[in-house]
Formats: sequence, C-alpha cells, structure tokens
Amino acid sequence: MDSVVLLGHGSGGSMMKRIIDEVFFEAYGGEELLQGDDAAILPAPANGERLAFSTDSFVVTPHFFPGGDIGKLAVCGTVNDVATSGAKPLYLSCGFILEEGFPIESLQRICASMALAAKEAGVRIVTGDTKVVNRGSGDGVFINTSGIGILEQGKSLSGAHCKAGDKVLVSGTLGDHGITIMSCRESLAFEADLQSDAAPLNHLIADVLKAAPSVRCFRDPTRGGLASTLNELAAQSQVDITIEEEAVPVKQAVLGACEMLGFDVYQVANEGKVVCVVAPEEAQAALAAMKKNCYGTDGAIIGEITQAQEQRGPKVFLKTTFGSTRILDMLVGEQLPRIC
Amino acid sequence: MDSVVLLGHGSGGSMMKRIIDEVFFEAYGGEELLQGDDAAILPAPANGERLAFSTDSFVVTPHFFPGGDIGKLAVCGTVNDVATSGAKPLYLSCGFILEEGFPIESLQRICASMALAAKEAGVRIVTGDTKVVNRGSGDGVFINTSGIGILEQGKSLSGAHCKAGDKVLVSGTLGDHGITIMSCRESLAFEADLQSDAAPLNHLIADVLKAAPSVRCFRDPTRGGLASTLNELAAQSQVDITIEEEAVPVKQAVLGACEMLGFDVYQVANEGKVVCVVAPEEAQAALAAMKKNCYGTDGAIIGEITQAQEQRGPKVFLKTTFGSTRILDMLVGEQLPRIC
Repeated sequence: MDSVVLLGHGSGGSMMKRIIDEVFFEAYGGEELLQGDDAAILPAPANGERLAFSTDSFVVTPHFFPGGDIGKLAVCGTVNDVATSGAKPLYLSCGFILEEGFPIESLQRICASMALAAKEAGVRIVTGDTKVVNRGSGDGVFINTSGIGILEQGKSLSGAHCKAGDKVLVSGTLGDHGITIMSCRESLAFEADLQSDAAPLNHLIADVLKAAPSVRCFRDPTRGGLASTLNELAAQSQVDITIEEEAVPVKQAVLGACEMLGFDVYQVANEGKVVCVVAPEEAQAALAAMKKNCYGTDGAIIGEITQAQEQRGPKVFLKTTFGSTRILDMLVGEQLPRIC
Repeated sequence: MDSVVLLGHGSGGSMMKRIIDEVFFEAYGGEELLQGDDAAILPAPANGERLAFSTDSFVVTPHFFPGGDIGKLAVCGTVNDVATSGAKPLYLSCGFILEEGFPIESLQRICASMALAAKEAGVRIVTGDTKVVNRGSGDGVFINTSGIGILEQGKSLSGAHCKAGDKVLVSGTLGDHGITIMSCRESLAFEADLQSDAAPLNHLIADVLKAAPSVRCFRDPTRGGLASTLNELAAQSQVDITIEEEAVPVKQAVLGACEMLGFDVYQVANEGKVVCVVAPEEAQAALAAMKKNCYGTDGAIIGEITQAQEQRGPKVFLKTTFGSTRILDMLVGEQLPRIC
C-alpha cells in the first residue's frame, strides 16, 4: 500500500480500487459495500413505518484528540441526528474528501475508529465515495456521513412539540468536547482526564423513549451548545424555557477553562450529550432511564418550558446560582471554529 | 445578507441560521427541510419494495463551466448513481463544506442550479448540513449529496449480472465533460459549443428499463471513463467485453482535443452518459427507448459480452477502426484530477 494519499486514489481507476479494497473494505466492508455497485440496496421498513434521513460533514481539527477522532465523530454525529427523531439508525453512507499527502496510516486509524463506533451503535456503512484534492486545497481529511433510520408507526417527535409545564433534561456534563478540542489546539492542559464526550446515543435515546413515551423531542447540543439548541426549540414551539444554573452538570475543569478563556459553557459544543423535553409526569422515569445508560449517568432535570409572553418572541432564561435571571442567547458569530 | 462566507456561518448559531434561511431555504426549501429538526422524516416504500442508497462528494474545479456547475453535478451525480440500480430516486441530502471568503453570490447561483436539476430529476433535497473551514483549508465549496430511491419488487440489476452474448449500449458521446473541464482550466478553446454533458439520467434509465426489462445493469462512466466502467463490469461478472471503436459516439472536437493532449477518450469522465448491458433480444428496444429521450439521441450499441478465457482474468478489448484489437485498461494513476 502507498504511504500517503495520492491524486490517483481519487481517479476512479485502479489506484482508487486499491485504496477502497485495502483501507475502507478492510475496516468496515460489509455485504452491500462489497457488492461493488453504485448504490446499496436495502430492505424497506414494514408497513406504516417511516424513514429518518440525516447528513453531516466533519471538518474537525485536530483529527485525533483525547476521547475520539474525526472518524468516531462522523459516525456518532449522524447516528445521533437520526436517533433524536426517535428513529432507529441502521445504515450510513460515508464520503471522504482527502488531501493529497495525507498519511494512509492516519486514514486507517480513522476507518478503524469508524468501524468501532458503527459496531457500538449497531449501524452499517453500506455505501461510500472517495475524492482526493490537491495539496493545499483541503485539510487532510473531511468526512460526510448520511444516515437512514426506521421510525415506528405513530411516533412523532419534534422541536415544535414542547408545551408549557414540560421538563427539560440533559444527559450529562456540558462542554467536554469543545474544551478538549480547544486545549488540544492551544496545547493547554487543564486537567489530565478531560476528554471529548463523543458517543453514539441511540441506545440511550431508545431507553428513555421506552420509559417515557411522551417525550416531546430530543436534540443533541453540538455546535452552538445548549444555548443554541434551547433557542431553536423555543422558536420552533413558540415557548419560553427557563434553566436552573445549579442543576446543569458541568465538570470543574471545563468551568475553570471557560472562566479563564471567556467562553460561555452554554455555547460550547458537545458530541455525546442529548437534550430531552418531556411531559412533567414522565420526567422522573425519563431521568431514571437516562441515568442507567453508561452515557447518561450524570443526567439531570435542568429546567422547564413556560408560556411565551405575547409582547416579545420566545426566550430562554438562565436562573443563576446567585438568584438572578439572565437571557441565554443563541451563539452569534463563531466561538471555536471546526469543532466537529 | 453578508457578501462572503464567514466562519460564523458554520457556528451552529444565529449566523448559521441566517445563511440557511437566506440561501438554502430560498433556493430549495421544502416541507421537510423547513421543519427544522435534525433528521427528515419520509414515507416508507410499499410492501416488497426496497431502498437504494448512494453518496457522492463533489470537488470539481472550476466551480462553474459550460454546461453546468458543481451544484448541477452534485444533484445529477447522486441521482444517476441511485437510478443505475433501477430505483426511482426521490430524496437527497446536501452537505456543504464552504471556505471562509467564498462569495455568497456564487453559493446562491450553485443552490439555484441544484434546485433546477432536482426539479428536472423529480427529487427533493430534504436534509442538509453546513460547515465552514478557515481560509486556505478548503477550495471555495465542496458538496456532498446522498440519495435515497425506491426499488420495485423483484427488480435486481447489478454489474455482476452480465452474460456472454449480452449487448453493451452507451447513451451518447464520450468525453464531453472531462474535455470541457480541462479546456476551462487551461483556457483552451477547442470548439465554441463544447460543453459538459452533466444531466439527470433517471428518466432515460426508467424509459430503457420499461422497454427492455431484462437489462442486466446500468453504470455511469464518470471518473475513469468508459474504460474503467467496463473493466469494473468485466471483473464483477467475470466476463470479457469487446467494444467496436467505430460504433462509439465521440464528438470531433473531443477527439481532436484528446489527440492533441495525449488523453485516451475511453478514460475521460462523463457526467451525463450511461452504459447499459442488455440481453441481445432486447438490445434494439433498449436503444430505441434511449434514442427517444433527449439525453440519449446519440445512443448506440457499441459492443458485446463474451466468455472470459480461463487462463487469464476478465478483459476488455477494443476493436479499432484499423481492424486491430487492443486491451482497454482501467485508468491507472490520475489523468484529470477533480473532474467532479
């Protein structure tokens, strides 16, 4: 095998066949991928079920970081986007944009990591594509994954379904991913054990949904953090949301880093957390199910939905530990580019 | 609206919301996309039908060229990959990787072009993603599209189904796309009217399939050209393929350019052509259906499948106009990088 990516690996010819066989098939070649046709043929869901379809591109830098890498993110990110709809993710596509000169050994590590994450999530990579751009026109590796899931009959979750009185849950500590990436980039060491929370959350989401069937919606607070996610939900449902600062789980190391660097932890990205809005009578059941899953042990009820006031648009409020209330705004501009 | 892409447009915050609303929704916002959840929810196919799923990333340079642009390619490429399986393409995802500083006006032109191509193909862009990389880490715009189609019960096309005696058809002239891109890059003007053949071929494919139900397979000869496609089919089916040079449609301008530049027209990329292998008794019906479609008027029967000899692996042969026979090899290395 060649030691670095060459333009010919994207040619459509025999060099491309080689990188596909020796790197991609080696890592995650299943029945559909090995068939060698241009589209994967998949069984359709049963009567009354529907499809969930989502896409995400990944451009994170650095490519490898404590707790994960761009490959793990690429699988988990799309798995989570499909799962938040309430669907069971089953199939992924994977498109690579490689830069000439990127080490094949790094690509192999990334693909092995994708295979591992896909196995944990219970999804299969069934179709793919490889492009190579010339040196200086990319940044090592970009990955797009798209995912298909199956949604049970009658299930309908949406950010537009939140109602006054509903409780807001989050599955664990905020900001781990964003602060980890930032410390890698700046070579800051805030704490030895801080690492990205990148994780496939489909099993956790399924557990919560089983325990609390009237969940209104799930949403993963990735780019833009919890603040942007809550503002999206408030706008979709035309409601206010109030969060209790002391209920929100945040690691001491992350809080310290945010204070030092002037970041708002509510706007820092997460890659293994989910926000859940649920009817009040099922909030405890949802929390218990969440806490039983290995990715939800720090889960908490952090706030609730209230009616929006007619005079102004929907707002998100934070009740601080000092007893004051401030508006939690959507991220404006860019805090940490290329976080995922 | 801002005049160029900024890092904040990929932030997950309010600037991202703005580019989504003002550029993407403006061009192709439909019901699912406007819903604003992380995954599009789609009706499942009827009993017995299956899904076809394919993905492609587009990194072509220049972004605009005679006959198309990166947006048109991104829609047509994935539509065609899904359609070659015999499926009816219905839904596309679209992931943008934008470089900081890319003109918003160019992005708008690209999105309008995607909307037009999607309309012609009869598919809808139902889910999307936007990432922005810093200046110098990308090349203006890269696009990934993934596509879902529905495959009728009992229909099974594959490059592995070719049999000795089958006829090989191509839907029109070879090399138009590759030579157009190359002339743009080198500012060569071979002929005023030479342009990319980029086109959605799903309607043509459906027409041929209706007229000739025992089509073995379709394949679009993109990167690597006709030579690579035929070598793939020969390997998948373990057969030989013989092509008659004088039967292969090629424009005079393309032939001249290839001769001048030392390119093999059989290895030059096409973006609006399809190869079809069909049982001999249905070859004429397939050809007639092809020629009736506006993208198949230059269609031709160009060769046939023969048994591979046991001693050596499957081969593709070209009978030249001089009466000699040469082996038509898969593209090795790279002829024209970033052709799509």
